Amino acid sequence: MSTLPSAQPRPVPTAHNRRTVARRLAESARIVPDLAKFDQAFKETRESVSTATETVPLDRLNRWHYDRNSGFIVHESGGFFSVEGLQVKSPGAAEHWGQPIINQPETGILGFLVREIDGIPHFLTQLKAEPGNRNGLQLSPTVQATRSNYTGIHGGRRVPYLEFFQDPARRRIIADVRQSEQGTRFLRKRNRNMVVETSEPVTAQDGFVWLTLGQLHRLLAVEDLVNMDTRSVLACLPLENDDPSGDGAGTLPSPEHAAALDRGALHPMEDVLSWITEARTRHEMRVRTVRLDDLDQWEFSGGRLRHLAGRKFEVIGVRVEAVGREVAQWDQPMFQDTSPGLLALTVTRIHDVPHVLMQVRAEPGLGDAAELAPTVQCTPDDYAQLPPDERPPLLDLVQSARADDIRFDAELSDEGGRFYHTGSRHLVIETEWLPEPPDFRWLTLRQLEELTRHNHYLTMEARSVLACLRSLPQGGLI
Amino acid sequence: MSTLPSAQPRPVPTAHNRRTVARRLAESARIVPDLAKFDQAFKETRESVSTATETVPLDRLNRWHYDRNSGFIVHESGGFFSVEGLQVKSPGAAEHWGQPIINQPETGILGFLVREIDGIPHFLTQLKAEPGNRNGLQLSPTVQATRSNYTGIHGGRRVPYLEFFQDPARRRIIADVRQSEQGTRFLRKRNRNMVVETSEPVTAQDGFVWLTLGQLHRLLAVEDLVNMDTRSVLACLPLENDDPSGDGAGTLPSPEHAAALDRGALHPMEDVLSWITEARTRHEMRVRTVRLDDLDQWEFSGGRLRHLAGRKFEVIGVRVEAVGREVAQWDQPMFQDTSPGLLALTVTRIHDVPHVLMQVRAEPGLGDAAELAPTVQCTPDDYAQLPPDERPPLLDLVQSARADDIRFDAELSDEGGRFYHTGSRHLVIETEWLPEPPDFRWLTLRQLEELTRHNHYLTMEARSVLACLRSLPQGGLI
Repeated sequence: MSTLPSAQPRPVPTAHNRRTVARRLAESARIVPDLAKFDQAFKETRESVSTATETVPLDRLNRWHYDRNSGFIVHESGGFFSVEGLQVKSPGAAEHWGQPIINQPETGILGFLVREIDGIPHFLTQLKAEPGNRNGLQLSPTVQATRSNYTGIHGGRRVPYLEFFQDPARRRIIADVRQSEQGTRFLRKRNRNMVVETSEPVTAQDGFVWLTLGQLHRLLAVEDLVNMDTRSVLACLPLENDDPSGDGAGTLPSPEHAAALDRGALHPMEDVLSWITEARTRHEMRVRTVRLDDLDQWEFSGGRLRHLAGRKFEVIGVRVEAVGREVAQWDQPMFQDTSPGLLALTVTRIHDVPHVLMQVRAEPGLGDAAELAPTVQCTPDDYAQLPPDERPPLLDLVQSARADDIRFDAELSDEGGRFYHTGSRHLVIETEWLPEPPDFRWLTLRQLEELTRHNHYLTMEARSVLACLRSLPQGGLI
Repeated sequence: MSTLPSAQPRPVPTAHNRRTVARRLAESARIVPDLAKFDQAFKETRESVSTATETVPLDRLNRWHYDRNSGFIVHESGGFFSVEGLQVKSPGAAEHWGQPIINQPETGILGFLVREIDGIPHFLTQLKAEPGNRNGLQLSPTVQATRSNYTGIHGGRRVPYLEFFQDPARRRIIADVRQSEQGTRFLRKRNRNMVVETSEPVTAQDGFVWLTLGQLHRLLAVEDLVNMDTRSVLACLPLENDDPSGDGAGTLPSPEHAAALDRGALHPMEDVLSWITEARTRHEMRVRTVRLDDLDQWEFSGGRLRHLAGRKFEVIGVRVEAVGREVAQWDQPMFQDTSPGLLALTVTRIHDVPHVLMQVRAEPGLGDAAELAPTVQCTPDDYAQLPPDERPPLLDLVQSARADDIRFDAELSDEGGRFYHTGSRHLVIETEWLPEPPDFRWLTLRQLEELTRHNHYLTMEARSVLACLRSLPQGGLI
């Protein structure tokens, strides 16, 4: 068996690998051409593409109805998504609750097409109107499509540039990973987060612009402009390691592969993985879908599905008139938060290596019990009346941060296809080293990068604010 | 912010890391002390511990009943597990089927305690009787317990050695990862696969023995001796890289971290991850639990739940009398395969680097649609009457392998707590390089090791036969 057939394929060349790609992306992040051309395209697109959305009672939606048999709100085709009841029981036995949740079993593609222009990788960015957007257009990945979109159940047009995400011969993979959607709103929903590079000539159609990573980073700081899907995908990019003694450049001072990942880290990767495994096992909730009319604390009134105490969110109906989009008019249910959220990361240097404080957090809709969430992820209004010891750890610290320590601060939207005028303040704050509360750990940016290569370690909220942190030079550390 | 509080913790030392542990485990694998002491302990335990199991009609089980309300078979406590109906729809629309499935929402611990004896890591192995075992005792991890076991719902005794898996101060983590159970039999079931090392003195109680990894490997080749949970955990151990130019020893010839993982690999890791992501998205099934009496092709007759065509498996009832176990007598439902399974890996050298042919396979009970399965995973009797082009790829090649090319061949059991007299032939076969059928890829042992560090990439069946392959010097390659 030691002789091999001559047809045996060659191993992959190692010259083109993740670190090389990371260096080229870091170069793209340093290049910030003038945004005048972008502003012009944005203005033109806003004139030709628009979405007018009005709220209508849930029980008056065209082609959607409350199904008396299942107790769910469904589309007449059986497609798209349904709004179902979810009964949740925490492992501590005492705690249980019910809530509406979105069940959309099909996996969508959120994909950026990358191409070199003048030697610099550029991202093909879509100017996309979604019914829930407060401001009309937002910046979306090149492709943002569910299977219904691209198999025609929607009755819409062909999805532009989809071929680069479906045909392996026409691109090289930079990132391709399944990631969760918000685990408090979706039942086990995942999207495929992709970044692919092509060397074919590609023209930006109307409504698309080529941007460097530096331009995208600059635009991230603009209120409600870069959409949630874009933030999710950007968080999955390979990261250049700035540390000159690190594994990204120069020679490795140590022969240990694992050590490279752990260099300067407060917790070795094996312990980080064990910490997540333990928390997932300990926090595992039992969930069961139930009829919406079996939810104790929710009522249908005024054409909406509301929580009796008026907290968290509502399910509303909307009617959408779109010009320049695939289908001209449709109705759909949407979720609307009753007050804005807060997503905050604290960052510090520990012995010269930047670390970010992450929490492991259980949510009923996550496919595997718990994932890493930002330092703070909550709706502050829910806690305004509570004494300090009943408020989430570090909420007060983050809300009272000095202006000098705030590295990033922008209100950014949730995905406008399902969420109506809903978003969160995204904060990155430099702090001193803080002791870790239970279920919190300081992780390096390099460790977070390794985790985003794999499925389902970071929540949508964590990826959203991590993209903001990664848009800052030195991870926001001065 | 550049001055840091003196209380700031020190980063982890890198001397004790995954590669160091891998080298010490490889040393343990090379040491195979005489097994006379083990044989003696096995004989003594078999005399003091025994399980007598008889089949009884499903509708005559004590404390279990068919619940007319849900349509499931449940325990009167609401605990343990339930047998439910599952309706499955493949994405291709045409294909759909129903089957019974086990729903056991709580995550168990499968854990090995490791300790140095005379400088060599030893594994504390339990000699455990399970009702479904064909032969009484099998070798189990130190701890094999569901939360019901260790919180007392079972009414049983304290689980020995559990403290080392629960108290971080008393051990160091070698592996700690959530892995799936069989996706054709369990609905989204995971277990926590753990290996922890302690430096405290630990005595082997009656029914436990200390074994080197070399001894465990030797015993793996004995029919129905090393149980499925042990195989699952062994597959998650760090692996020494034998390649002297590799990242396990000496100096790295390249500064690239990612390159180390890809060295000599036919497919770079980024492409492997993308391949899995793509297949998960393409193969995603829609599953829905239904009443058992709503399953078309299944009938309750003769006290069993059977498939009308007599295929695949049956749900039966058993009555267990145990001596030396926690509880003396109980009834339970079990699953029994109607004919034996086959799990085979083909292995070859591609340009001097060992590669294993893996397939990506969708199963209805997997939490994330599809995972990597062995080269062949099937029940050969199901295909005996079919023409070659309707048989699974490589089944014929594997079944007709020359004796000279068979590196491992043993009949090994499924987990005896849920499966009655059920097991699979485990085969490792050295082949020439073979072209990859659709959904198959040749991966290196190093890539498979990296995947088993993370959750839910390899099926239970893949881990089971991978443990056999890893028990062979050079991965079975001559």
